[in-house]
Amino acid sequence: MSRANHVLTLSCINRPGIVSAVSTYLFETGCNINQAHQFDDTETGRFFMRVVFDRVASEPSHTALEDGFQTIANRFGMDWRMSDPAARRRVMILVSKFDHCLADLLYRWRIEELPMDIAAIVANHPRDTYAHHDFDGIPFHYLPVTRDTKLEQEHALWELVQSTESDVVVLARYMQVLSEGLAAKLAGRCINIHHSFLPGFKGAKPYHQAHARGVKVIGATAHYVTGDLDEGPIIAQDVERVTHADFPEDLIRKGRDIERRVLARALSYHLEDRVILNGRKTVVFDT
Amino acid sequence: MSRANHVLTLSCINRPGIVSAVSTYLFETGCNINQAHQFDDTETGRFFMRVVFDRVASEPSHTALEDGFQTIANRFGMDWRMSDPAARRRVMILVSKFDHCLADLLYRWRIEELPMDIAAIVANHPRDTYAHHDFDGIPFHYLPVTRDTKLEQEHALWELVQSTESDVVVLARYMQVLSEGLAAKLAGRCINIHHSFLPGFKGAKPYHQAHARGVKVIGATAHYVTGDLDEGPIIAQDVERVTHADFPEDLIRKGRDIERRVLARALSYHLEDRVILNGRKTVVFDT
Amino acid sequence: MSRANHVLTLSCINRPGIVSAVSTYLFETGCNINQAHQFDDTETGRFFMRVVFDRVASEPSHTALEDGFQTIANRFGMDWRMSDPAARRRVMILVSKFDHCLADLLYRWRIEELPMDIAAIVANHPRDTYAHHDFDGIPFHYLPVTRDTKLEQEHALWELVQSTESDVVVLARYMQVLSEGLAAKLAGRCINIHHSFLPGFKGAKPYHQAHARGVKVIGATAHYVTGDLDEGPIIAQDVERVTHADFPEDLIRKGRDIERRVLARALSYHLEDRVILNGRKTVVFDT
Amino acid sequence: MSRANHVLTLSCINRPGIVSAVSTYLFETGCNINQAHQFDDTETGRFFMRVVFDRVASEPSHTALEDGFQTIANRFGMDWRMSDPAARRRVMILVSKFDHCLADLLYRWRIEELPMDIAAIVANHPRDTYAHHDFDGIPFHYLPVTRDTKLEQEHALWELVQSTESDVVVLARYMQVLSEGLAAKLAGRCINIHHSFLPGFKGAKPYHQAHARGVKVIGATAHYVTGDLDEGPIIAQDVERVTHADFPEDLIRKGRDIERRVLARALSYHLEDRVILNGRKTVVFDT
Repeated sequence: MSRANHVLTLSCINRPGIVSAVSTYLFETGCNINQAHQFDDTETGRFFMRVVFDRVASEPSHTALEDGFQTIANRFGMDWRMSDPAARRRVMILVSKFDHCLADLLYRWRIEELPMDIAAIVANHPRDTYAHHDFDGIPFHYLPVTRDTKLEQEHALWELVQSTESDVVVLARYMQVLSEGLAAKLAGRCINIHHSFLPGFKGAKPYHQAHARGVKVIGATAHYVTGDLDEGPIIAQDVERVTHADFPEDLIRKGRDIERRVLARALSYHLEDRVILNGRKTVVFDT
Repeated sequence: MSRANHVLTLSCINRPGIVSAVSTYLFETGCNINQAHQFDDTETGRFFMRVVFDRVASEPSHTALEDGFQTIANRFGMDWRMSDPAARRRVMILVSKFDHCLADLLYRWRIEELPMDIAAIVANHPRDTYAHHDFDGIPFHYLPVTRDTKLEQEHALWELVQSTESDVVVLARYMQVLSEGLAAKLAGRCINIHHSFLPGFKGAKPYHQAHARGVKVIGATAHYVTGDLDEGPIIAQDVERVTHADFPEDLIRKGRDIERRVLARALSYHLEDRVILNGRKTVVFDT
Repeated sequence: MSRANHVLTLSCINRPGIVSAVSTYLFETGCNINQAHQFDDTETGRFFMRVVFDRVASEPSHTALEDGFQTIANRFGMDWRMSDPAARRRVMILVSKFDHCLADLLYRWRIEELPMDIAAIVANHPRDTYAHHDFDGIPFHYLPVTRDTKLEQEHALWELVQSTESDVVVLARYMQVLSEGLAAKLAGRCINIHHSFLPGFKGAKPYHQAHARGVKVIGATAHYVTGDLDEGPIIAQDVERVTHADFPEDLIRKGRDIERRVLARALSYHLEDRVILNGRKTVVFDT
Repeated sequence: MSRANHVLTLSCINRPGIVSAVSTYLFETGCNINQAHQFDDTETGRFFMRVVFDRVASEPSHTALEDGFQTIANRFGMDWRMSDPAARRRVMILVSKFDHCLADLLYRWRIEELPMDIAAIVANHPRDTYAHHDFDGIPFHYLPVTRDTKLEQEHALWELVQSTESDVVVLARYMQVLSEGLAAKLAGRCINIHHSFLPGFKGAKPYHQAHARGVKVIGATAHYVTGDLDEGPIIAQDVERVTHADFPEDLIRKGRDIERRVLARALSYHLEDRVILNGRKTVVFDT
């Protein structure tokens, strides 16, 4: 993967000529296609494309490239985005008491595995809950929440998203359900990790439910947040085998490992523009 | 695995002295323990044990060994079973239109991977549905079923189980729900394979449901049949990754592979006395 | 997957304009791109592309479409292939004593999971070794081989490949090493399944080697056959966990399952034109 | 898992009466068996046993329990160990430039997932290489090493093992080969993580080797260190799928995830006395 490349993602109603128009435009503006995926959802008639390209010269500028592409986008009625390798995404991480996902994301950020800037860490527990973590200058915000203060807290949250210019919000085991209003504002850019295997066990204590049912496999699901909790478009899932000898506490332990790797995978897909929304589902160009 | 060995499985309320009593009995009757597993379900206080042993001499006979053990079993209130390596289990296979599990079980039986005799193959489709299969002398029974004839058909089924002296009944994608009455008669010895990942998608067309939800993982569950369809104790589960490019027909294709290997694994566990019922769950000593 | 589609695969030295030229050609000849993948091997500078498309009208004919594409292929120096959905590939299966892969391929062929015609089954054991299989009219050829008759036997094999017009040769646990000469004639269209995890354990009795080493994972590798045995370009691999309690016979049993599914997967990739050779490696567009 | 339990592990030549003797001893000393596994290696005739038990009363003391068991151990010629739940193992972690395994182990230790005390962290890079880690009072030792100073450095290392009373040494990507002398001193209590899938790719840059070979699966192996580098008894292995689109840097990234989870799993098995040496192999009672 040439990480310094531009990535163009788009979706539109399928009809002949899309790939030709896109690739000819890139060719004529001095761009070279390195990797590309297309997918035609024959059920809905919708077409999805991801193109990774680099530029032979520094001209035209990224902005000019985008402006020129708008004509093609208009012709086909595209939803699209062209990432600028010079601009890293700004990510806000929301966390609650359990910090295994936070610890994992911080580590991957520090060694530059995840190409992002962390705009802020927001928690409903005070800073000393995370005393052992070196936040390394990342602003920390303590926003406690109760049933009564939920609306205000969400208001403060949304203010923070705006003031920190966060592009992405990650619920890293945040344990709070976002209101439909906030979920709507963050549509397509707020990622949650759901413990246990969705949609198998909803509600409280899913690992206890899974244990009571005697399952032999548990898992985790990372998805975009929508107003309908735990029902947003799935980005990534993974599982692990368990046995009768695994008590709920063991499932929780194994779950931590699955959760952190599934959340990191989903965030990495998002940051690399590998995910395109397709109604209630996603198209993930992951190879 | 010394396949010609005896296997003793037992469960009872846990209390001190069980392992000692069992192992001392085996020692004193000239048996040698090759493999053993114990598990104490601290939630329920129930104790589970599987012992694989061989006998130095041909005396005492298997029957005498069982008779002698009954005293210990009584003392601890055990549910138990001691398998005789000389007696292979008799298995009845029920099948409907889709024959991938049947084909797989037949092959594994033929190469002696599954240590069983197939007592009968029963289908609700006529023999020529399975024209390409060499049943090799296994009796085939065509028992069609409609909503109106269900009771009679189940009666015939039960007669067959008895007349063929079947120990185990395998629903190899049989696609019919057994009545509560028949399920009860076959409790703990009737294995079903459930397509798609239980308990995620219940009801009709689970692969279509999974596709509509955009899942990234599908699976299959093998379980003992109870009156509550698809809710019996789980024996084995497995999964496979899928992508947005997998249409329902692809999920069905991938599902076939998962289904046949999970059902074969569950049956093999059952035949090797690796599964012990634990209420709504199982204890599976699989290594 | 619209299985009735055309598939165009190509590779060439990467340079600007390839995707544009290809997609414009398809657009202008009335074709509609459904799925496409591109990959640029930045190490070698080679570019790989797979395009799935259908045609709005029956004109131009498949042959005319190919003829027209040759001009573009020449301009970029492409290795390419355009599959005609009306023409199924003809596959010859070579088998030895162990028939688990044969049984699996036959089943998948019968239920139309693998889109191929089986041109012939060739074995170095007589027909009655496979007595339980219904070959359903597929010609069977018994070609025994000894060290002394190897050359003649390979000559007969090659005659058969030609007379049956086989496009693909599958070594379904054939257990014979092809001579360099025959391997060269079948370059890029002869698939072998290698038991055990390559390149870990070469030589005889790999499962016994794996057992002696105490590995916790075993696997299988499907690859194109080259003169250098077991070193051809890898198409697919998979693994399964094993434990200390698995004796070599257990590894062999588990290996059968991995072998058959990895071979079937590799063959399916090949038949769907998902594999493009890249020197000693492959590019596999599997989603 | 009742984590506060005692664990008895033993191995000896198999002969009748072992299980009976062990379980009767535990019964008569007021102990209650919660979990147990036995395994008979029929190839070598060696018998392996792991028993988890708790005590009804505080008498006899752990030491008295051990002393009493010595008689039985002598009778059967056992290698054995009886862990005292009151005594946590002391672990020394050795690390080099790459700190992903260190970060992972520290996190699991902090949340009490790994039941150990960290006696020391030893590195051949200075403390500021790990500036972002909160060592939380764990003594850090900087022991640089060159080809010329290797013997002295190993001497210092061994002194540290003794002075810190370390029971276990973990090479958390330490990247140095221990001398045969030091490996011998740490036999059975020094765990290494080997990047890439052993024994496939030995020597330098294994991920580059794997990439050049075009493998579709990579993995990692955790094993006890012996004089023969990378050939010690395997404790745990795991793998992940890779594709043609994964360049060596991607394999390294994916490798980090596999390495850290395999090393953590192996260490956890060791700390819970689930691993018993069996010549060049291990018996791992992992369920």
